[in-house]
Amino acid sequence: MRRYPRMVLAGVGYIGGSLALAARRAGLVERVVGVDPASRALAEAGARGVIDETAADIGAAAAGADLIVLAAPVGALAALVRAVGKLAGGALVIDVGSVKRDVVAAGDDAMPSGRFVGCHPLAGLEAEGVAAARADLFDGKPCLVCAGARSDAAAVAEAVALWRALGADTLPLDAERHDALMAAVSHLPHAAAFALAGALAQVAGEVARELGGAAATTSLRDTTRIAASSAGLWRDVFLANRAALLPLLDAVQAEVAGLAAAVRAGDGDALVAALERARATRHRLVPRS
Amino acid sequence: MRRYPRMVLAGVGYIGGSLALAARRAGLVERVVGVDPASRALAEAGARGVIDETAADIGAAAAGADLIVLAAPVGALAALVRAVGKLAGGALVIDVGSVKRDVVAAGDDAMPSGRFVGCHPLAGLEAEGVAAARADLFDGKPCLVCAGARSDAAAVAEAVALWRALGADTLPLDAERHDALMAAVSHLPHAAAFALAGALAQVAGEVARELGGAAATTSLRDTTRIAASSAGLWRDVFLANRAALLPLLDAVQAEVAGLAAAVRAGDGDALVAALERARATRHRLVPRS
Repeated sequence: MRRYPRMVLAGVGYIGGSLALAARRAGLVERVVGVDPASRALAEAGARGVIDETAADIGAAAAGADLIVLAAPVGALAALVRAVGKLAGGALVIDVGSVKRDVVAAGDDAMPSGRFVGCHPLAGLEAEGVAAARADLFDGKPCLVCAGARSDAAAVAEAVALWRALGADTLPLDAERHDALMAAVSHLPHAAAFALAGALAQVAGEVARELGGAAATTSLRDTTRIAASSAGLWRDVFLANRAALLPLLDAVQAEVAGLAAAVRAGDGDALVAALERARATRHRLVPRS
Repeated sequence: MRRYPRMVLAGVGYIGGSLALAARRAGLVERVVGVDPASRALAEAGARGVIDETAADIGAAAAGADLIVLAAPVGALAALVRAVGKLAGGALVIDVGSVKRDVVAAGDDAMPSGRFVGCHPLAGLEAEGVAAARADLFDGKPCLVCAGARSDAAAVAEAVALWRALGADTLPLDAERHDALMAAVSHLPHAAAFALAGALAQVAGEVARELGGAAATTSLRDTTRIAASSAGLWRDVFLANRAALLPLLDAVQAEVAGLAAAVRAGDGDALVAALERARATRHRLVPRS
C-alpha cells in the first residue's frame, strides 16, 4: 500500500495523536508535522514522539505533504478544508470529525482535485489531549468513510486502505446518512447523558452528602459516564448536526413525558409497554451484552 | 454473631438467591426454605443448591423460621410483610427491595415485635433469575438499612451484622430519605435509559440495517445498558416511588427541552453552560472514573 513520507496533522489531540502513532506503528509515515493553536499540545506531542516538527499554520504545512489529517474540533473543520484547498497538491486529505455533512460539502467545494475524503473513526472521545493518545486506539473499531460527490475514486480507495492499515474496519457511508445515523447512536446518547446529569445538579449536594460513595451506583455511573466529555467538543457536534439531532431530542422529551404521565396515572400497563419497547430497541441495537 | 439455622426465602430470584448463597458461604444458615409462585424458579434453586426445601406459601414457611428474607418484586413486598405478620415469632425479617417507604410502613404496622428491618443492597439488577445468583454479589457493595419507627434496636443491629457477614458495607438511612436519594441515583437513571432507548425505537430498524455492528457504539452501549432490565421490576419501582421520581422526571424533561432550545437557536454559550453544569454534577456524584 501507499506510504506517506510527510504527514501533516492539524489538531494535535487524542484522536489525531492516536492516528499519528498508529500510522507510525504501521510504518506508513516518516515525518509528522503538527499544527495546533495550542503550543502546549505541540510541545507535549513533540516530547512524546507523536510529531517530529511543527508548522505555524496549515497553509505553511500543506506544501509538500503526502497526507493531511484534519483532527481539529468539528466546528473548525470546514474552514480547515478551505484553508488547505489547492495547496494540498496531490496529498490525500482526510478529517476525523464526528459530523460529516458540512466538512464533506466543503471538501467538494474547496478541493476540486477530489482528494478529500471525510472519515469518522468510532473511537471513544472521553479521553482528551495528546497525552492520552495510543497507537492501538482504532484496532478493531469501525471507521465510517464518507466520500463527497466530487471525491476521486482512487482517493476513496486510498483512505479505506489507510484506515485498514491503522487497524480499523471501514464502512462506506453517504455523509447525510452518516449524520442521521450518528445522531441516533452517538449524539443523542451524549445529549441524554448530559441531560440526566444536568437534571441532578440541584440535588447533587444532598445526595453526595447523605450517600457518600454509595451515590455512585452502577446505573448512575454507566448512564452518565459520557457526561464527563468535553463541553466544547459536544457543543460543536450538537450544533453541526442540529438538523438530525433535534427530532431525536424531541422524541426523548416525548418519551420522558410518556413515562411521567404513566407513573403519575399509576398506569402499570402503559409503563410496561413503554419499557418493553425500550428493552427490545436496546437489544436490537446492542445485540450482545 | 447470631446464626440462623432456618432461613425462609420468599422470592427465589437473582438477589434472593445470591443472599442465600452468601449466607451459606458465611456459615450463617443450615436450611433454606424457598417460597415462590414460580415452580420453575424453585426447581432451579433446588438443583443449584440455593434452597434445601420449598413451602407452599409464606404463612406455612414462617413458623419456626429464624430469618425471613423477602426478595419478591417491590410491588409484592408490603403484602408479604403483612402475610408474615405475627407468624414470624422471634425471626428477623428483612426485605431487599429498591423502594422502602411502603414496606417499612407495612413492617411498623404488621410486625409490632419490631423485628422487621427494611434493607436495600445496591447490587446490579440487570441479571435475572436464580441461575445468575452468586455468593459474592454483595462483597464490598453498599447496603442501605432502613429501620422503621417501630423497629427494635436489637433487630436493626442484627440486620447490620447480617449484611456485613454477607460482605456488604451498611449505611443506615430513613426510609423516606432512601426513596428520595434512590430516585436520583438509581430510579431516574433507569427511567432515562429506558426513555433514550424508547426514543430510538422508530429509527432502530434503519440504524441496525445501515450500521450493523457499528451501531453499538460505546456511548449507546453504556447509556442504554440498564434499559435491558426487567420491565415488570421497574414498573413496580417507578410506581412505588412515584412521589420522589416525578419531580426528577420533570427535571430531565426540562433539561432535554433546554438543550433542544439551545441547539435550535444555535446558542453555543447556553449549550456549553448546560454541558459544563452536567459535567460538574457527574464528577460530584461519581468522583473517580
